[in-house]
Amino acid sequence: MPNKNDYKLLFDINSPDDIKKLEGQDLKQLCSEIRQYMVDVISQIGGHFGGGLGTVELTVALHKVFNTPYDQIVWDTGHQAYPHKIVTGRRDALKTIRQFKGISGFLKRSESPYDSFGAGHASTSISAALGMAVASDILKENRKVVAVIGDGAMTGGMAYEAMNNSGLLKKNLIVVLNDNQMSIAPNVWQISKYFNEMISHPEYNRFKGAIWDLTGKLDYFGDRLRKVAARIEQGIKAILTPGMLFEALGFRYFGPINGHNITQLVRLFEHVKDLNGPILVHVLTEKGKGYKPAENHSQRLHAATPFDKLTGVSLKKGTSLPSYTSVFGNALVEIAKSNDKVVGITAAMPDGTGLDKLQAEIPERYYDVGIAEEHAVTFAAGLATRGIIPVVAIYSTFLQRAFDQIIHDVALQDLHVVFALDRAGLVGADGPTHHGTFDLSYLRMIPNIVIMAPKDEAELRNMLYTAVNYKKGPIALRYPRGNALGVELKEGFEEIEIGKSERIKSGNDLALLAVGSMVDYASKAANILARQGIEAEIVNMRFIKPLDEEMLLEVAAKFDKIVTLEENSLVGGFGSGVIEFYNDRHVKVDVLRVGLPDEFVEHGSQKELHQMLGIDPEGIAQKVAAFLKNKNYKNGVVA
Amino acid sequence: MPNKNDYKLLFDINSPDDIKKLEGQDLKQLCSEIRQYMVDVISQIGGHFGGGLGTVELTVALHKVFNTPYDQIVWDTGHQAYPHKIVTGRRDALKTIRQFKGISGFLKRSESPYDSFGAGHASTSISAALGMAVASDILKENRKVVAVIGDGAMTGGMAYEAMNNSGLLKKNLIVVLNDNQMSIAPNVWQISKYFNEMISHPEYNRFKGAIWDLTGKLDYFGDRLRKVAARIEQGIKAILTPGMLFEALGFRYFGPINGHNITQLVRLFEHVKDLNGPILVHVLTEKGKGYKPAENHSQRLHAATPFDKLTGVSLKKGTSLPSYTSVFGNALVEIAKSNDKVVGITAAMPDGTGLDKLQAEIPERYYDVGIAEEHAVTFAAGLATRGIIPVVAIYSTFLQRAFDQIIHDVALQDLHVVFALDRAGLVGADGPTHHGTFDLSYLRMIPNIVIMAPKDEAELRNMLYTAVNYKKGPIALRYPRGNALGVELKEGFEEIEIGKSERIKSGNDLALLAVGSMVDYASKAANILARQGIEAEIVNMRFIKPLDEEMLLEVAAKFDKIVTLEENSLVGGFGSGVIEFYNDRHVKVDVLRVGLPDEFVEHGSQKELHQMLGIDPEGIAQKVAAFLKNKNYKNGVVA
Repeated sequence: MPNKNDYKLLFDINSPDDIKKLEGQDLKQLCSEIRQYMVDVISQIGGHFGGGLGTVELTVALHKVFNTPYDQIVWDTGHQAYPHKIVTGRRDALKTIRQFKGISGFLKRSESPYDSFGAGHASTSISAALGMAVASDILKENRKVVAVIGDGAMTGGMAYEAMNNSGLLKKNLIVVLNDNQMSIAPNVWQISKYFNEMISHPEYNRFKGAIWDLTGKLDYFGDRLRKVAARIEQGIKAILTPGMLFEALGFRYFGPINGHNITQLVRLFEHVKDLNGPILVHVLTEKGKGYKPAENHSQRLHAATPFDKLTGVSLKKGTSLPSYTSVFGNALVEIAKSNDKVVGITAAMPDGTGLDKLQAEIPERYYDVGIAEEHAVTFAAGLATRGIIPVVAIYSTFLQRAFDQIIHDVALQDLHVVFALDRAGLVGADGPTHHGTFDLSYLRMIPNIVIMAPKDEAELRNMLYTAVNYKKGPIALRYPRGNALGVELKEGFEEIEIGKSERIKSGNDLALLAVGSMVDYASKAANILARQGIEAEIVNMRFIKPLDEEMLLEVAAKFDKIVTLEENSLVGGFGSGVIEFYNDRHVKVDVLRVGLPDEFVEHGSQKELHQMLGIDPEGIAQKVAAFLKNKNYKNGVVA
Repeated sequence: MPNKNDYKLLFDINSPDDIKKLEGQDLKQLCSEIRQYMVDVISQIGGHFGGGLGTVELTVALHKVFNTPYDQIVWDTGHQAYPHKIVTGRRDALKTIRQFKGISGFLKRSESPYDSFGAGHASTSISAALGMAVASDILKENRKVVAVIGDGAMTGGMAYEAMNNSGLLKKNLIVVLNDNQMSIAPNVWQISKYFNEMISHPEYNRFKGAIWDLTGKLDYFGDRLRKVAARIEQGIKAILTPGMLFEALGFRYFGPINGHNITQLVRLFEHVKDLNGPILVHVLTEKGKGYKPAENHSQRLHAATPFDKLTGVSLKKGTSLPSYTSVFGNALVEIAKSNDKVVGITAAMPDGTGLDKLQAEIPERYYDVGIAEEHAVTFAAGLATRGIIPVVAIYSTFLQRAFDQIIHDVALQDLHVVFALDRAGLVGADGPTHHGTFDLSYLRMIPNIVIMAPKDEAELRNMLYTAVNYKKGPIALRYPRGNALGVELKEGFEEIEIGKSERIKSGNDLALLAVGSMVDYASKAANILARQGIEAEIVNMRFIKPLDEEMLLEVAAKFDKIVTLEENSLVGGFGSGVIEFYNDRHVKVDVLRVGLPDEFVEHGSQKELHQMLGIDPEGIAQKVAAFLKNKNYKNGVVA
């Protein structure tokens, strides 16, 4: 951990007010110390790292110039906000970042008055900032509002909607485009590419030709006029900058400027601070700036585990267990190799979803559509109308963005689109913005859809294969973040019968009906219960929709008490489906629903969170034992 | 209804093949007859009308030039597709449009092979068309794909995501921008406004100044050079067209062209048909073209009831009942007048949501953000962080678009945003793309939210008032499309206690727990049951979340049988919430859940659909009587 004596200024910076006292060389020194401090701390504990190294000068400049927290900074997504946390009273707390009961890895309103808007999902900052700017106007305050958004997040449709609306409303709003040119789908920069290519545009050439023609005719003054023409061409190019897009949307454009020159940044922000109307400041930064291993391996250090400070090499102990993500990625490649109708779609997360493997092996059937989940799903629907089989791999939490498209464009037309939801359930350190705890509920209400959850990586492979071969309509599988169980993976694939569960173990006292990650936990809980003389039957339900009704009737006939287990909200999830079925069939059976409470769950390791919520094997065993003891209830009270 | 003898060509057009045989004057004649036919038919039965009158020539030109249905046309939203229906085998069926068991008012894949993609929600066409274009490429077909999108739909973020992605993928895809300049938020046209304003742009002026300066210096040749400069300025303006935005996104731009000149349209489509890469064709059309009353009152005839052919005046019989929409709109104005923190937000539906009243009375607290539901919600969240009270008025079905934003930007931060969901439940003629049948399910799973449904328009007023004064976090109210009940509206407002239900009538045999529109139906069903000697207790639950648990325990103690009633999917909705509660409290009570089945419901009048599904008062009474007769169940079978 950092030694105070290694720092000249940082430990005197307790709030942005302390930054305001610094000038010139001291600002540079502070930036350098923030970098050093981030490397010192994050190398020990891990964390999103590269983004923050790129925004050190930007952060210092913003807090130097603006009167935070009265003036409001809205950081998009939040990965870039570590330096912001350091200079806004959370320097010492940085060592707890992303840890259970520690500070959040993202912005969080309840954590600091300097965090004006929370964010984990991309592209929200301009909308929120515009709301604040309008509020400032209504309240007749002179509060400045600054949104800081990366070039990747700028590809999201919401950002465009918000830009449009900002241009129209003409409120005072500064958008800082933090352009590290690292966006996986460089769509925004299509526009600068375009302006470079314009030289070859026919209309432009016709126009240029006409000038040359004219100047040619004036031959005795030709040379001088050719110089004029050259200056005109320069002038046109000066207008035709990337800024044009933003100007067209109603923003005044400033930039691009070097995002690592603190002096320039301060000067520019001083200049634009009091201008009226929407302003776009285009800042060029480098992800990982100032830390060689991060500059060279920006992808690797995007979400880093603890690492060696000098080399940047991860210190994470090796595990022989594959992740669900990698098993999925490999299975998709295998399936796509034997079925040339299969394509993979990701919304700017090739590594996170495991689709990088498809990209490497069959690039012509791999599509990264940018941070654009809505488009991803309807694009898939379009493909499916022609008999292509799209596998849309999106994290559970991000697929929320495409809820309407799943209903309106896929399910309503009963199109065969495969949804692969990674990071389903509690994701751990990323916390509530990223937990995938609603998908069983939000998918289950959609007519025509099939929803599966594998108990382990072998079943994941078979479910993906089943989904690709299903043909009849939309089908989804959801699986957790992190390591799989380490079961043997057989060659080839087996289809699973739709809606058919699997009895894992017979028992005499009650049935545990589990889905996905909870099948393994149920088995472990059953072992604990067995030591108490309780023999639980265990069923891997496999399908959340359609439910295996035969199995449900069978266990209800055999047992008075049934437990459902899921890593999803208890509101409207798998357990709700089970009790809806029993209710509607008027089957009388006592059901205990184990799952996630109707609240947002904080961050921490998956294990810590499972324990906290009593859904780890021990917690489950306790709940089940208590449930079994209460033989009779009347009106909610144990008789 | 139309007389065949009034038409020279139309009744020989049975498919696009018949259009291909026509040339020159005959094409014009056909367009004129299509218009006449639309007026003849739609004046009798009502329907979305103006959009289709604007696309007559476009439709004929597309089917003339492209080899449909092999080549694929994707119509965005579908209002504009009546002429398309007429020339693709549905001329005679047009008289059944939007009627129960008749053809759909939108595109529908199952209705015709010419309907390549269904749509009711806006901005989906480019995504779907891109999917088809990519499929065509994978399948090595030479199938052309054309998306037709309005300027309004172009403001949606999805359209931008899809344009970006199209520019990147460089597949063969033609996007027709049907620009009727009627988009409520003319954001796309911000760009042309910009180019007009550019003359005053400092950089441009600096550049222009430099030229004039130069030319001035060359004084003995000054006049001639000034002419050169003027031509240069013209040339610059020629490049700086609205097309530029699309060119920048990777599209080749053609236009703008007159969308009512069939000859020009055919020529242009012939020209671009075989070009490679993404093409944008900018077509200027007039909504209501060729029918004077529609041209003059485009808003009135956007979604028309039957009307007089000559005057365009609606033939709808007057009703003394106000719509829920207008009661909401008036109440919001009243509340906003006495609370200057209240603002209203619509996503391009001021009339549909009733926010036009706020727009008229307090324009400075009215925001139309364009067809941009995602932005609308996060914009509201930004406002709420500053203590402004945003009332986001969006139809139930369109709010699906902002599902993630409600979770991530509003509920997770527990911000006080009021959601007013109009068109909740079955909406009637617009059918499955527009039914608001999921909101109780998709909102209920969200932590921290309050969900209400008023039994009548008086309660709607009080619920809106309650919501605005709630302060603690997100709160939603949902109410149906159409006329309210006609109850007396008192002056002023009363707050309703959060989570408190209202017993409407005591009974002895069983309890009917109803929400929203079903409270009135339950009362009517109870009257029918009373004639059979069954005395039902009726509770207006008011709150779907939090449920009135005290009332639930009370009725469970009093009755063995309870009926829940809702106009929402039975999957995860209000009834599910009730049985989740009873289950988790281990309260044994037999519950019949009445609501919408787990399927997409077709179009038809609300009354017809309610009858079909057995959720009209008679149907409910029958279900309840049968439920009451079956005294004992065992494993789903009546003992």
